[in-house]
Formats: sequence, C-alpha cells, structure tokens
Amino acid sequence: MLKNDQLESWDRENFFHPSTHLAEFARGNVPQRVVTGGKGCHIEDRDGNRLLDAFAGLYCVNVGYGRPEIAEAIAEQAKEIAYYHAYVGHGTEASITLAKMVLDRAPSNMSKVYFGLSGSDANETNIKLVWYYNNILDRPEKKKIISRWRGYHGSGLMTGSLTGLAAFQQKFDLPLDRVIHTEAPYYFRRDDLSMSEAEFVAHCASELEALIEREGADTIAAMIGEPALGTGGLVPPPAGYWQAIQEVLDKHDILLIADEVVTGFGRLGTMFGSEHYGIRPDVITIAKGLTSAYAPLSGSILSDKVWKVLEEGTDKFGPIGHGWTYSAHPIGAAAGVANLRLLDELNLVSNAGSVGAHFKAALTDALGDHPNVGDIRGEGLLCAVEFVENRDGRVFFDPARTMGAKVNAALLARGVISRAMPQGDILGFAPPFCLTESEAEEIASKLKDAVAEVLG
Amino acid sequence: MLKNDQLESWDRENFFHPSTHLAEFARGNVPQRVVTGGKGCHIEDRDGNRLLDAFAGLYCVNVGYGRPEIAEAIAEQAKEIAYYHAYVGHGTEASITLAKMVLDRAPSNMSKVYFGLSGSDANETNIKLVWYYNNILDRPEKKKIISRWRGYHGSGLMTGSLTGLAAFQQKFDLPLDRVIHTEAPYYFRRDDLSMSEAEFVAHCASELEALIEREGADTIAAMIGEPALGTGGLVPPPAGYWQAIQEVLDKHDILLIADEVVTGFGRLGTMFGSEHYGIRPDVITIAKGLTSAYAPLSGSILSDKVWKVLEEGTDKFGPIGHGWTYSAHPIGAAAGVANLRLLDELNLVSNAGSVGAHFKAALTDALGDHPNVGDIRGEGLLCAVEFVENRDGRVFFDPARTMGAKVNAALLARGVISRAMPQGDILGFAPPFCLTESEAEEIASKLKDAVAEVLG
Ligand SMILES: Cc1ncc(COP(=O)(O)O)c(C=O)c1O
Ligand SMILES: Cc1ncc(COP(=O)(O)O)c(C=O)c1O
Repeated sequence: MLKNDQLESWDRENFFHPSTHLAEFARGNVPQRVVTGGKGCHIEDRDGNRLLDAFAGLYCVNVGYGRPEIAEAIAEQAKEIAYYHAYVGHGTEASITLAKMVLDRAPSNMSKVYFGLSGSDANETNIKLVWYYNNILDRPEKKKIISRWRGYHGSGLMTGSLTGLAAFQQKFDLPLDRVIHTEAPYYFRRDDLSMSEAEFVAHCASELEALIEREGADTIAAMIGEPALGTGGLVPPPAGYWQAIQEVLDKHDILLIADEVVTGFGRLGTMFGSEHYGIRPDVITIAKGLTSAYAPLSGSILSDKVWKVLEEGTDKFGPIGHGWTYSAHPIGAAAGVANLRLLDELNLVSNAGSVGAHFKAALTDALGDHPNVGDIRGEGLLCAVEFVENRDGRVFFDPARTMGAKVNAALLARGVISRAMPQGDILGFAPPFCLTESEAEEIASKLKDAVAEVLG
Repeated sequence: MLKNDQLESWDRENFFHPSTHLAEFARGNVPQRVVTGGKGCHIEDRDGNRLLDAFAGLYCVNVGYGRPEIAEAIAEQAKEIAYYHAYVGHGTEASITLAKMVLDRAPSNMSKVYFGLSGSDANETNIKLVWYYNNILDRPEKKKIISRWRGYHGSGLMTGSLTGLAAFQQKFDLPLDRVIHTEAPYYFRRDDLSMSEAEFVAHCASELEALIEREGADTIAAMIGEPALGTGGLVPPPAGYWQAIQEVLDKHDILLIADEVVTGFGRLGTMFGSEHYGIRPDVITIAKGLTSAYAPLSGSILSDKVWKVLEEGTDKFGPIGHGWTYSAHPIGAAAGVANLRLLDELNLVSNAGSVGAHFKAALTDALGDHPNVGDIRGEGLLCAVEFVENRDGRVFFDPARTMGAKVNAALLARGVISRAMPQGDILGFAPPFCLTESEAEEIASKLKDAVAEVLG
C-alpha cells in the first residue's frame, strides 16, 4: 500500500507541475504544498497552514471553498451516472439543464452553448468554428485572429499564440501563423504619458484600424479580448474602449470573441463582463466561474448570427467534425448547475461588486500614498496593485529585481495568497465572492506590512 | 424552477452537441437521448430503454458503469477539497498518488506525468513539449510531426491536424503546417492485394523512410501513432510493424509518441499497448482509461530522455510556460486512483484479454462466412467488423449507401450500442472490461440478426 509519508518524494519523482521550474522542483528547491481542505476564502495544507486565498485558486473558486451544495451535487451525479457522451444528440439532465441556465444568463442575442473542459479548449473550439463559419460563408481568406498584447487566452499551441505574454511563447515557437496582436488597453502603461484616457482610447482604436488595413479586412475573421485584461495585469479598460473597438470591428465585418473565462458569472459585479462594459460579442468563452472550479467545465456561447451559419454548414456538409470525449461531462455539468444556483441564492454577484468596491478603497487607504505604488485598480473582485521604482515619471523596476514576486512572498508569509502576475511588478487579487469586508481589510492591512518590509 | 418535462426543448434550443448534424438536431430530426443511469455494461435512458453499451461510451468507461468505489472517491474528494491548482509545486494527495500510480504502471524508461483534461489537450501538450525539447537542444528546424492517415489524436486545431480523417478536417482548414501524414498500417485496406503481411510492413516502413528523406530528418521532431489504430478503423497492426517503424525513427533521431488514449490501462489485455507490441515510446498520451471517464483527466507521460532536456530548459529559461487551470484536477485524480485500484482488484485487464478473445471468436462464428463481411479483427476488447459489397476482390460499398451506419442502427434496435466508425463501413466494439462471455455472445448473436436484416 502507498504511504502518505512518501508524498513529498512521490511528488518530486513523478509529477510534472504546470508553470514550474522543473529542475529546481525536482531538486527540492521549490517548495511543495499539499492542499488538504478549504472553507470560504481559506485553504489548509497538510503542514497545518491556514491561508486566506485572495486569488481564489487561479481566480476560479468564485463561490469559495467547501460548499456542501456543490459537493453533494457532484456526489449525486457520480452515483447516478458519472459519464455518458454528448455526441449526436446524447445528454444528461445535468448538461441540458446547465445549457438552459447558461443561455438564460447570457446576452439575449446568444443562441447555443458548446461545453468543453478548459478555457484553452473553449478558445480552440472558437477559432475552429470561426474558420468554419467563414468557409461556409465562402470567405476562405478571412481567417486571421486579432488578439491583444498582454491578453491571456490559454496555453495550447493556437491559444498560446493568442496569449500575448512572453513567458507562454518563448521557446515554443509561438505565435503560430494567422494570429496577430494589437495594443493592450492598459492606460497606466501607455507609451506617451501626456495622453488623456480619451486620447489613449482613440489611439487603441486607430492602432487596431491601422492593423486591419495593413493586413486587409478580408483576411481577418475575428478579434478576441478579455472584457478586463486578466493575467496580463488585471486592467479594467479605459472608459469608452469597447465602444471604440466595436465600431472598428463592425465596419470591417470582423467577429468579436469576448473571453469571459475570468469575468463570466460575476467577477466584475455583473453576470458577464460584456454586460458590464456594453460589449456585444458574437462568441463568449466561459470556464472558471461556470463551476467555480469544483469540476472541469468550459463553454463557447455562440450568437444567433454565428449559429445560423453553423446550421447551414451541417445542412451542406453533414455532422460537424468537432468534439471532445468529455464535452459536457455530467460531473462538470452537475457542478455548474449547483454553482449557478448558489450564486443566485447567496447573491454573490452583487456581493462581488459591493465588497470589491470596499476592497479597492481599503487598498487605496493602505497604499495610495506609498511612493512605490504606481497604480491601484480594480473592478468588482478583480484588483491589482502595480509597483514602480519611482511614481514621478512612472519609472518601472528592473524586472530582474522581481519586486512583485518579493512582495507576494512577504504577503504569503503573513498568511495571504495573492498572485505575482507574469509580466510586470503587479500583485493580483481575485478572491472568492464570499469575501467579507473584514477579510478585505485584513488583506489590505497585511499587504501594507508586506510592502513596508520589501520596499520600506 | 426548471421543469423536467421541458428537457427536450431546452436541449434543442440551447445545447450544441459535438459531432452532430446541428440543423437536423435543432429541427428535431435527430433523436435525443437523455441518459439517466448505468450498471456494468448497460446504460438506461429516461424513456425507459436499457441498452448494452458495447462501445463503453466512447471507448472509455473501461471498468463499467455505476461503480460505487469511484463514485465514493469522487464524493469524498469533492467534500474534502474539490479544487486547488497544481502550479508551482502545488498538489493534493490524490494528484500526487495518481502520478506515482501511473509511473508504477508505465514502461520503465518513463519519468514524469503531466496531467491535463482531454486526450486532445494531452497531445497538444506533447507537441508543445517536443518543440521546446528541440529548441533546448538547439535544433530549431526539427519540428514537423509525422502522423498516419486514419490516426485519431484529437479534435483541436493542431491535434485535429494530426488526426488523419476527412470528417475532422473538412472545412476547418486542417491540417495546419508542420503536420505530415504517412501510410496507415491497415493491411485489409492495402492498395496492392497481392502483398503479404510482411511485405506490407516493409512497404509501410519504406514509405515512412521515403517521407523522412523527402522532408529532411532534421525538420522532423516526432512521429505519433496509436499502438492499434482506433477511430480510423480499430485495426491491430500487422506483426512486426512497430519494430520496423521504430528502426526507421531511431535511425533518424525522431521521437515516438505512443497515443495510448484508447489502449492505455488495459484495453488490449495488457496495461499499455506499448508493452503489448514491444514499442519503446519517448512520450505516452493517456486519457479515457485513466479514470474510466468518471471524471475528465488526461496525461502526458514523458521518458527520462525527454524530461532531462525539459529540466535543462528550465535551468536556462526559468519556469516552463505551460499549464491549464485544471491540470491535475483533484476530482479527476481521485477518480483515477479509485479506477486504477479497481482495475487491479477485479483483474479487469486480464479479463479484457480473455473475454476479448472469446468475443472475437463469437463474432467469427456468427459472421465469418457472411459474404458481406470482409474482415473481423480485434485485440483484447477492441474489435471491428468491416463490411464489403463483395468479399472476392474486396469490393467496398459506395460510402453514400452508409451500410455501416445501417447495421449499427439495426443493432441498436436490438438493444446493443456499437459505433459506426467515421470512414468506411466498419462497426466498432469496445465494451467495458467487465463484459461477460454471455454478454459477448449476446452481442455477436444480435449482430448476426442485424446483419441479416440489412444485408440479407
Ligand atoms: C481569460 C482567460 N482565457 C482562457 C484561459 C485558459 O483557461 P484554462 O487555464 O482553463 O485553459 C484563462 C486562464 O487563466 C484565462 O484567464
Ligand atoms: C487515440 C486518441 N487520441 C486522442 C483522443 C482525443 O481525446 P479527447 O476526445 O478526450 O480529446 C482520442 C479520442 O477518441 C483518441 O481515441
């Protein structure tokens, strides 16, 4: 029999962890943490630590840890029927019910949902369908996808190409063909400091238009973007950004894919980020918040306009050649149904909005005057603090000094998990929606101490 | 509240089913089936049908339906900690234990396992890692992947490119660059009927070598193949095939990825297909049988040789930029641990071998003399019957007559689920490993009736 006291060596000998320094982990120089339980905003590990998880796993455990309602729904589904496939009209009560619940919550022009497993595979599905769409419409050249620098859309080959962050592309030969990038709507990091927010928005729109004209609108199928940038820095867009972008896209008949893997199901204090910013997408990517990560499930929500063309495609060419064995997996579907019910019953979306505002105010109180704090930003429960060497003239730290990671470590030592975002000295916060005001204040005050320790 | 009697309309209005004729399903012309339960080799639907599932879902419910041991493991894990991520050295007891159990069962040169969700995403990971591997080794041009016609390796953009079946590529602009195909080891469908099996093997190897020489060995990173072809026709390789192929690959320093999504964990009557055929892969893809589909989980098992280079890469370039939010999801890991234990405890792998032999004999008894049965083949519990218009001279049916699909429907009307494979009039059987001899005989005898009805 396997013995628990061997867990650490089993781990280092057998387990390839994602986003890890593989050699240092194998050597024992990267710490191991075995998570054993959780409740609300806290997790526990086998060494007896109890931590306030202010990043909700990977911004996904939106309803918080340890919800018996979801655990029971999973248990019941596993007992009843853990798996049957969804090909050729098959389904389960859970998967059909969840499809209905997703469409009930999505913008009104949305028509159907395809269920996958991960945010990455949902974006993979999206690109495949967008290409198919233009083939059915007899526009075989209209295929490129525009993404933004600092966007995050997955870690696959094509989805990692959409992602506009060096760490996910370096040494992997990405981006692949057919993916092109435009400017990120990241006002704090604008090149020209003299620009107003409105001027910056106009600049982003004209950069997009210039790219489209350079490449030719008839070669471009879609643009993908997160309503508020996530892994690239947790950056709400400047006012008017999406209106300006959509105008350009509409003019050139380019579809818009809203990647709502992070923002979907409440993180910004509204059900979808599209609703929050008045975006009218043709396709919406969902994952994390769909099940609060209790089981893997993602989705591609398709508008009526796109769906009609897919139907036409199958009338012409027969069944669509796309599917994962675990599409609409019943365990994920059952978790999704229970999770969306819980969101409603506990009013968690509105809590994300109100406690989010409180949290941002607490961060501003605690750190607004610190000379190394360049920006405090947030929308709902998606917040970030960005550190700079010098506020005046916005002088960034040398990345080699890894100041963001150092503050992150100092905060962890105080019992709070945040995330040092991969590009820039940016500390990210995306706690569960059940965060209380006093937990929000605790995070802010411990962060103040951590910053004082690292930066004085 | 949602009401069950609306399930059918919710389904047709909201749910995008994989591999489905979308327009006909929306119109109500493709039947809907809501699966409500299962036990052993049988499933039940809400209309009261009880069916013998001779394809185990999508050849994945290997231990059979309704196993309380796995349902309880899932329930317990959901209660304890449903999710925490596996990034940067994090894990759970379940994920670490499963990593150990996988490596204990894998060929001895294997070193580490990365856990994903689907077979497709595992192959995506494999390609990404193989490219990284050659970049670290300073061979930036060595990147193409060889696959086989009729291989099935997923439904994504790159993985659907590996797949060598028209239905998954048509109208999706696949295959993408860097994927090239060679001949399938499908003796029954050889072009030259006069070839012996040994001559055909030599022909496959020389076709591969010619391809490599045409493209240049220094442009080719890896070859991927299923130990026995799955979705392309369920075809065990001719004797000596893998030895001949491996010799060519070794000579040209090309890695071998064994896609064991179907064959892994027992389907051929041995733990891995690699073991069964004496293959020595550098990378092994696993999915389906890892959890018997009770929860989504896949994996990439990497050899020592590959792993060492990945470690070197992170020493040079820092943490590896690859990961899915749900990598090594605890629910999947718990299902995997319980599933692998059950395989051992119930001796299911050896049952797959012995009852598989009985099943093939029963099929041969029932149909061996039928003039429209061209081939009956199988290994363990992976079997197929291939229909032809005329046995003499091996005259295939016109695909437009969909004879395979018709036999499949006639068998379903008799209460048995098989699968009409997507290319050719091939009926596939891949039942759960707990199939009994009498169930095997029941399938064969009902198939005999179904064939008589359709083909006389
Ligand atoms: C906006 C966005 N899209 C897609 C993804 C990819 O999701 P997954 O990690 O589940 O593949 C992520 C993951 O963080 C994300 O933040
Ligand atoms: C050999 C093989 N590889 C990969 C896959 C893809 O797995 P999934 O459908 O889980 O993406 C399959 C699915 O049938 C398969 O048979």
